[in-house]
Amino acid sequence: MAMLSEKLRKIYTETGADALYTECDYLRRYLTGFYSTDGYVITDADKCVYVADSRYFEAAEKNLRGSGIEVVLGGKDVAYELLRGYKTLGIPFPIVSVSASCELTDAGYGLKDSMPAFQTAMIVKSGEEIAHVRRACEIAEEAFLLLLPELKEGMTESEAAALLEYNMRKLGASGTSFDTICAFGANGSVPHYETGNCKLKFGDIVLIDFGCKVNGYCSDITRTFLFGDDKKHGDFKKAYAEVYAAHELVKEKLTAGMTGREADEIARGYLRKAGLDRYFTHSLGHGIGLNIHEKPNLSPRSEGKLLNGMVFSDEPGVYLAGEFGIRIEDSVMLKDGKVVSFMNKTERNLVIL
Amino acid sequence: MAMLSEKLRKIYTETGADALYTECDYLRRYLTGFYSTDGYVITDADKCVYVADSRYFEAAEKNLRGSGIEVVLGGKDVAYELLRGYKTLGIPFPIVSVSASCELTDAGYGLKDSMPAFQTAMIVKSGEEIAHVRRACEIAEEAFLLLLPELKEGMTESEAAALLEYNMRKLGASGTSFDTICAFGANGSVPHYETGNCKLKFGDIVLIDFGCKVNGYCSDITRTFLFGDDKKHGDFKKAYAEVYAAHELVKEKLTAGMTGREADEIARGYLRKAGLDRYFTHSLGHGIGLNIHEKPNLSPRSEGKLLNGMVFSDEPGVYLAGEFGIRIEDSVMLKDGKVVSFMNKTERNLVIL
Repeated sequence: MAMLSEKLRKIYTETGADALYTECDYLRRYLTGFYSTDGYVITDADKCVYVADSRYFEAAEKNLRGSGIEVVLGGKDVAYELLRGYKTLGIPFPIVSVSASCELTDAGYGLKDSMPAFQTAMIVKSGEEIAHVRRACEIAEEAFLLLLPELKEGMTESEAAALLEYNMRKLGASGTSFDTICAFGANGSVPHYETGNCKLKFGDIVLIDFGCKVNGYCSDITRTFLFGDDKKHGDFKKAYAEVYAAHELVKEKLTAGMTGREADEIARGYLRKAGLDRYFTHSLGHGIGLNIHEKPNLSPRSEGKLLNGMVFSDEPGVYLAGEFGIRIEDSVMLKDGKVVSFMNKTERNLVIL
Repeated sequence: MAMLSEKLRKIYTETGADALYTECDYLRRYLTGFYSTDGYVITDADKCVYVADSRYFEAAEKNLRGSGIEVVLGGKDVAYELLRGYKTLGIPFPIVSVSASCELTDAGYGLKDSMPAFQTAMIVKSGEEIAHVRRACEIAEEAFLLLLPELKEGMTESEAAALLEYNMRKLGASGTSFDTICAFGANGSVPHYETGNCKLKFGDIVLIDFGCKVNGYCSDITRTFLFGDDKKHGDFKKAYAEVYAAHELVKEKLTAGMTGREADEIARGYLRKAGLDRYFTHSLGHGIGLNIHEKPNLSPRSEGKLLNGMVFSDEPGVYLAGEFGIRIEDSVMLKDGKVVSFMNKTERNLVIL
């Protein structure tokens, strides 16, 4: 019998159940590296079985050959059959529904939460995972550079977002990593603005927060720029320079071993001195991986340590309601104790089109 | 105090809990008509409260004025405060996570499943809901017609899908209603094929299954056609004619009051006589609304009655592994006892480009 990977064994052991029962698509992908929209992965101390239906069986067999993971043809009935004999099952409580968990408890199983063990494992990325994030970041930046010359007066936020998404898809992304935020003018002052039908006009501030997926892994980037300079943006330009400085300061000062709170404070402290901290209404950053928001948190309340191999966003922002919003965001990682950005193609300095 | 809508009261009464506590975004939208990515709706016999955070508060107030739904500013803390005094809460068991439900049971609440009451209500669409589905269908068809002249030899499945999605977005859709399936050649024989990098060539059969969302409501359509005729598709053309006939027969023979099984049998029986039923490996259709797959089911095992106001797919298909797949799908509704299709712009007859 092939050996289970260290990753699988760690998550299994830390959960402390007789078996892990994993139905959620991105956790299945994380455990095995194989993606299917439906399927079941059952892991115990000795073995790991991927239950795939007829749509995926062939591909699963091919992809998992030599991995030590056995592939079995079937659906939920087959998965349930394989669970027989176990007393306790590890399932991810924040994801599994009440209905699904009741089915398992009604069948007599004790349940343990496997999510903490997954989160502990997933917070530090492997080289392969980092390569996927890097590619997702490259595509996002290239798509953005293709968008800029296409922006025209009268174009709506939705049209610009659609074009950007098309560019990412064409460059090889499987889709967006979240709903693209494209805000023209004062709309940028709403941090989670919903892209609408506002039309672009000369002198508008443009804020675009977007990202894509490659092999399931996400990128996340925000750029704020001017669509022409109508010379009415003195306050905006001053604030931009401060947010930019805060963004860069994080890259310079953040080191492995700091807590999320300390990292956040690099940017927040800087903006405090600039008198802008009251407009910095969200946290500095969040982990990025198979989810667009995952651990670690870089926030005033986060005491978790930031370690080499973690991937997260550096995204200070300031929002003056009804006037403007500024956010400058890169996806970055910690390597050899220091921050390395995945974003190397686009300007972070203020761009005026 | 404004009166609660009949819809709200019915779902509340049928659930039989002291209050409905609804966090899921599409159920919140269904209850109130207002969409936000985050928020909480609390409903009891007398009132309905929408808890919206600072991002959504203003818009919620504006949209819900006169609806009898009160808007309160806040997050989860405020929602939990409003739950005080109730003993039992109705939450949708198939959606709420184990973690979220444990928080509520730990706080002493008894839980009842609100999902059956939601499903009963949601299965028959209002005029406004139907208008949204209709617009989503129009956009899907228009986007498809814009795609056809752009298809070129050497284009990949992903590129074609990206262009189609861009067209839908540009025509006003908020996004896709599911991952676009675009299959060239024999790839179409996999019913849930994952769009890849296969390149289009002369004589290919093309199967595209796609849809978009308008105000949260979905469209769903599949077209199968020939990218040029290399005269090697005799079997395909024969089978296409049969699937087309089965598709049209459903529209002709399906009447309100039939069960899902009887509806399915119209197509399956026809394909049986044509010797093709063994290749019809899925059910005839599914309900369409805020979800791309919802009730009713039109399958051999579905005894639920089909009623006026229900919206569902008519999608017979045959799949000959490694050879070809054919699926012809419209989104349709039952009106005055008969089937009315939302699709009026695209051919269902075999198109040869």
